[in-house]
Amino acid sequence: MTRPIEIHGKAIANGKTPIVCTPLVGRDPESLLAEVAKVVAKGPDILEWRVDYFRDIGDAETVIATGKRMRQIANGIPILFTRRSTREGGEPISIGDEEVVAMYAAVCKSGTIDLIDCEMDSDRDQIRRVRESARASDVKLVLSYHNFSYTPGLEVLKDRFLEAERLGGDVAKVAVMPRDLDDVLRLLQATLDASRKGRIPLISMAMGGIGSLSRMFGGMFGSALSFAVGDKPSAPGQVPIAEMNTVLGIVERAVGGK
Amino acid sequence: MTRPIEIHGKAIANGKTPIVCTPLVGRDPESLLAEVAKVVAKGPDILEWRVDYFRDIGDAETVIATGKRMRQIANGIPILFTRRSTREGGEPISIGDEEVVAMYAAVCKSGTIDLIDCEMDSDRDQIRRVRESARASDVKLVLSYHNFSYTPGLEVLKDRFLEAERLGGDVAKVAVMPRDLDDVLRLLQATLDASRKGRIPLISMAMGGIGSLSRMFGGMFGSALSFAVGDKPSAPGQVPIAEMNTVLGIVERAVGGK
Repeated sequence: MTRPIEIHGKAIANGKTPIVCTPLVGRDPESLLAEVAKVVAKGPDILEWRVDYFRDIGDAETVIATGKRMRQIANGIPILFTRRSTREGGEPISIGDEEVVAMYAAVCKSGTIDLIDCEMDSDRDQIRRVRESARASDVKLVLSYHNFSYTPGLEVLKDRFLEAERLGGDVAKVAVMPRDLDDVLRLLQATLDASRKGRIPLISMAMGGIGSLSRMFGGMFGSALSFAVGDKPSAPGQVPIAEMNTVLGIVERAVGGK
Repeated sequence: MTRPIEIHGKAIANGKTPIVCTPLVGRDPESLLAEVAKVVAKGPDILEWRVDYFRDIGDAETVIATGKRMRQIANGIPILFTRRSTREGGEPISIGDEEVVAMYAAVCKSGTIDLIDCEMDSDRDQIRRVRESARASDVKLVLSYHNFSYTPGLEVLKDRFLEAERLGGDVAKVAVMPRDLDDVLRLLQATLDASRKGRIPLISMAMGGIGSLSRMFGGMFGSALSFAVGDKPSAPGQVPIAEMNTVLGIVERAVGGK
């Protein structure tokens, strides 16, 4: 049911689902690389560099040089590279969308990352170019949708996953803000339905306090990846990585035990 | 949202939800009381004596004498007294339903128990008599429904909770067997809906491997009690009590953390 995410022709963490992803939110090279060292020690399956937090995002050379040092410290842990827009919950940055696309192309080419995140509501031509940059360098494309205001209806949610596939994404990601537990259940149902209908791996979560449930047991419903805190959170409701791993282990034993 | 279960005018475990209930399935007084001692050391909030496992169920005097010794060993932990019928997943017993009602009356009167379970699909007159025996001795009545074959539709599930309230139960319990994760989500949705519509505390769970999710996270959706294994399980999908407490603690912190 839950399709593992593959990079370079191989499933991450030998196909375990969900893999645990720790965000990196450092604002300059030194604090970012210190964060990487701290986080890597906690054993995440993958790192997400949230480059919208990075002060030098406008300087592709510094981004790539920092990415190279990150690669060394990460010691084999795959890296997902993400600029989140302010529309979808990210930090304000000093460059425009066109410059981001150019920077994405340079970073893909640099060989320092394994996956790259692009919002599916971006300009279609920009998505196409990011996809081409990614494909050319064997980088996987995560097409994502974030709603920090509310949780859309079931059909809309399902369509967001399928839209990522239609647009040529290698992975579909949907993150929403629930107002009540009904919203959390609907996000899980939409993930389950989309995992049956679609063909690419999915990532989904409801954010905030009550949404944290979906971070812990969404792996059963088709979500291949869950975000957990290594050093600092990047979105509300993220659980510390040690607690996440504890719960995932207990859930796996309980479910497998029948 | 989740109403705590009260006995003798006070919420069990100071109103914590869900409380963790450990089943007791010993077949004779000695092994049963050894089981109680073993289980009590693990700190459950409540014990359920599954008397259908008890070989001497037909001898009310032995049942009550054993109940008195159990009371001492339980050292203040409340006791739920349950004969589960074979129709709803229980063990075959040597006496008929009428004798069970008489035995229930004697046990209520003995002061050795705090809650008693009666299946809501029992004969209406028998339910009425069990309710009267319970009320007369300040014992709370759990009216229960178990389906080991499948998970009914949403409206049927909601109605099972509300039926328990209509029949004069103090607590409504619904346990079902899911065939897929859609069934697990529906059980949680029904619990959530019933907790908004009804007025009495609820207990709900989906059984089996995939159902174990609902045992761990159902407390958020209105279920006031979750069964966990102290020594031996009484139904499929029950998680060991230590793991249950670990998950509940992590969930509570994550949800409260917002």
